[in-house]
Amino acid sequence: MEDRVEISLLMDFYGPLLTEKQNEILQWYYNDDLSLSEIAELNKTSRQAIHDLIKRCYKQLLSYESKLSLLKNSMNREKEIINFLEYLKNKYSIDNEDIIKYKEKLENL
Amino acid sequence: MEDRVEISLLMDFYGPLLTEKQNEILQWYYNDDLSLSEIAELNKTSRQAIHDLIKRCYKQLLSYESKLSLLKNSMNREKEIINFLEYLKNKYSIDNEDIIKYKEKLENL
Repeated sequence: MEDRVEISLLMDFYGPLLTEKQNEILQWYYNDDLSLSEIAELNKTSRQAIHDLIKRCYKQLLSYESKLSLLKNSMNREKEIINFLEYLKNKYSIDNEDIIKYKEKLENL
Repeated sequence: MEDRVEISLLMDFYGPLLTEKQNEILQWYYNDDLSLSEIAELNKTSRQAIHDLIKRCYKQLLSYESKLSLLKNSMNREKEIINFLEYLKNKYSIDNEDIIKYKEKLENL
């Protein structure tokens, strides 16, 4: 189907806006690599129903991203942080451990 | 009603998830300081209908924040950026213009 890495990232950002059930099924499909049939069996429903649910959720995740751009902004932020730290490191010879410490701190915010 | 600054910030973050009409009415009420009656007249509807819509949207904004914490995270990020830049400034005597330039850059990401 679609790019699993992208969807996994979108789930990190927008998962809280989906239902628990939807999150569970996306998790099984995209992260745990269960097949549509396996998920259908676990949910006592049809393969088609699971297929439709995943497709609907994927569209919903893309729609959230088109409105809020959390994934895009987060990637830009990360790029900008790396540029900034590189610039500082070169100009002021900052200790590498300070760079690493703050890179992690800023990225996890 | 509620804290206008908080709501204005929540609108910045989650406005794209509301409809155009809802955004317009919240904008009139919270940012442009129009009264319920004035907004009702502009919309050819009742004061009560506008009151209910604003209340519903406010709850929706709070619900998004409780799920995604964009406002909270953004405030934490800003605090962390300021701490980091202060720390760098003190330890490495970095030019103030570099600090200001990157503070703005990081905050606007």
